[in-house]
Amino acid sequence: MKRTSRDIRTANRYEVLRQIIAQSPTSRQTLAAATGLSVATVATLVGELLDLRMITEVGFEDSAGGRPRGLVAVNASGGALIGVDMAETYVRVELFDLGLNVLARAVEDMRPGESRPEQAVGQVAAAVGAVVAQAGIEGARVLGVGVSVPGQVDRATGIAEYAPNWDWHDVPLLDLLAEYIAYPLHLDNPLRASAVAELWFGAARGREDAVVVNLGTGVGAGLVLGGGLYRGVSNSAGEWGHTTLVLDGRLCHCGNHGCVETYVGAPGIMLNLRELGPRSPLLHPEDQTATIDALALGVAAGDPVAVKVVRDTARYLGAGIADLVNVYNPEVVVLSSWVAKKLGAPLLDEVREAVRRHALRRPFAATEIVLSPVPTDPVCLGAATFALEGALQAVGQRSPKRTTPARSRTAPPS
Amino acid sequence: MKRTSRDIRTANRYEVLRQIIAQSPTSRQTLAAATGLSVATVATLVGELLDLRMITEVGFEDSAGGRPRGLVAVNASGGALIGVDMAETYVRVELFDLGLNVLARAVEDMRPGESRPEQAVGQVAAAVGAVVAQAGIEGARVLGVGVSVPGQVDRATGIAEYAPNWDWHDVPLLDLLAEYIAYPLHLDNPLRASAVAELWFGAARGREDAVVVNLGTGVGAGLVLGGGLYRGVSNSAGEWGHTTLVLDGRLCHCGNHGCVETYVGAPGIMLNLRELGPRSPLLHPEDQTATIDALALGVAAGDPVAVKVVRDTARYLGAGIADLVNVYNPEVVVLSSWVAKKLGAPLLDEVREAVRRHALRRPFAATEIVLSPVPTDPVCLGAATFALEGALQAVGQRSPKRTTPARSRTAPPS
Ligand SMILES: [Zn+2]
Ligand SMILES: [Zn+2]
Repeated sequence: MKRTSRDIRTANRYEVLRQIIAQSPTSRQTLAAATGLSVATVATLVGELLDLRMITEVGFEDSAGGRPRGLVAVNASGGALIGVDMAETYVRVELFDLGLNVLARAVEDMRPGESRPEQAVGQVAAAVGAVVAQAGIEGARVLGVGVSVPGQVDRATGIAEYAPNWDWHDVPLLDLLAEYIAYPLHLDNPLRASAVAELWFGAARGREDAVVVNLGTGVGAGLVLGGGLYRGVSNSAGEWGHTTLVLDGRLCHCGNHGCVETYVGAPGIMLNLRELGPRSPLLHPEDQTATIDALALGVAAGDPVAVKVVRDTARYLGAGIADLVNVYNPEVVVLSSWVAKKLGAPLLDEVREAVRRHALRRPFAATEIVLSPVPTDPVCLGAATFALEGALQAVGQRSPKRTTPARSRTAPPS
Repeated sequence: MKRTSRDIRTANRYEVLRQIIAQSPTSRQTLAAATGLSVATVATLVGELLDLRMITEVGFEDSAGGRPRGLVAVNASGGALIGVDMAETYVRVELFDLGLNVLARAVEDMRPGESRPEQAVGQVAAAVGAVVAQAGIEGARVLGVGVSVPGQVDRATGIAEYAPNWDWHDVPLLDLLAEYIAYPLHLDNPLRASAVAELWFGAARGREDAVVVNLGTGVGAGLVLGGGLYRGVSNSAGEWGHTTLVLDGRLCHCGNHGCVETYVGAPGIMLNLRELGPRSPLLHPEDQTATIDALALGVAAGDPVAVKVVRDTARYLGAGIADLVNVYNPEVVVLSSWVAKKLGAPLLDEVREAVRRHALRRPFAATEIVLSPVPTDPVCLGAATFALEGALQAVGQRSPKRTTPARSRTAPPS
């Protein structure tokens, strides 16, 4: 019962801005109809967003018989947001306007020997400096920076608790970043970043209960429950990649056997391929991306090995997603991240059929299964959205939750 | 974003009454401290509960230096609640006072050939009539009847959509019951009934995120998320019993293979035993209850077959519960229902160890795993709690959501 009326006000503020971003210009009356809020409540929230200069008045529309209705629209230049996707093999940084259009982008390889926290922080700081310069905006207009880092993170303290690929343990990431970056910083992981991207801009928009299945090197499920992100008691909910699909099956790096991830993460798909055709030309043993690309091309060309590998993978995935359907009874399951994007519609079709075979009939009938409609990198977009939420949460508070120390700089030391 | 300030008020009303039931007498100040609500909000809610005669003023306590504080307590005789547990093989009906103490009880066998809806409804109606007579209370004081029926149910329409054991499909159960029962009726299933029992009176009280694992003939998980029951989009969340634990494993009655239920439901445990010792004297082939009783006695006596069967079952259960820990990141996992109660502490110890082996380290460290502390039948208690929630929800509404037709009677026709 910890949810307060303050939380409700914040959630309503999110919802109204979400609607305005989705469809500008719009009137308070249209917003009220779309959100289910009263016109008076919408008017108050619109007033707050106008004060923040996140939206602007843009004229009037006629209303049948009544007086003209004022229209509002996103003030795209009212601020900028930065999203950082620190992935296993690269750092990607994007700068967005308030309409969440990408204004600038920087992508850097994260080389295997250079993943110590200080090195990664230096790379992120440089890339953040680069996108601000590239976009040609004043630093003062950056409302915040959202940072996504794989593994388990503590948002409140800004600590990356455990990132298996880099062997990071309890790295005070935001404190390190704050040495270089003078904007409010927000930490979370890719599961929740891509879930919030779907919630604001994708297939989970306007849904109460949705599951965003991330298919990349690692796999997991971002959970939208009751119209908001679900985090669990220590912010680690959604580790569906480490649920057991095959008791005593493949060994997983988490120590368990038969985890979903070992069958449907990119390395797991490579193993599915290797088991089927050890000498298949589709297999690029040291390169996940090249292998998944080859599979996608192979399926398009009707290569029987490629078709079989995608079908086998979809069978594992279908059984795992059926578990989510049975336990959560969601309105929609969204397939997101790069493997889903590359394998696309053929994978989706096979997955739907496999989920149908494994799930209970009624919850299956209540669930749509779709590919993410987000056109850009959902993790960068979601990370930027955390920064936007941070700015909206700060309304009426004296200062944002996380303030940057006075000694901060905006560029790395060299 | 559908959660309104009305929902918050209802949730707060639940929370205050829950606290008063847990500890009477108590003061508004103590309630405010326990719930995190302001004293003014608590005073308003206490006023509503006094108006409903669910609680009474019971005097004053001194407060250091200040004026004496008014004390309130549950008005146990302020109303009665009835819980109905329609299980696979029996119907159990209990009548509770407002302190949720059992005042009367009726249990009837549901014989295999007599599970047509009309027959079951006749039995329930007779048992409801019997407990009201037994308790010697005026019918007018019954605030409502909660009914739990296995399978998938539609609460809003009162329809039992699918009960596999009886082959029921879309039975309009509440309409049928309303022919005989003149009290407000509330329908749900045993997963959610036992979860709400834990939420109000058991191990989930005061928790934000909890999973109540039901171990009986069927198995499933009632989900408490954000301090309230989570239902999913079509009220079928929690079908953990039908998640895949062993791909291509045992055939389940749901059509899938390798479901958790086929390994840890009572018939699954019997199969674990049969595989280990086909001629074991512990096995009572036609009697689940007798077999589980024999296993419990065998473990207590150190019988190596019984110990091995419980360990094997705990291993399956541990892998399945680890999935819930990884996906939900709950504060507490509660083992409930009759199999958990009979196998008790030896099962719990083995399960904890097995979950530790299968779950991720951090979410495991954040989770307690306990046996249900509810001393009575949690399904009857939970069903009665749905009736109590119904009465609390109706505050300030003209009439309860479901009213009984004028033609209703309180006893079956025969
Ligand atoms: Zn794993
Ligand atoms: Zn099943």
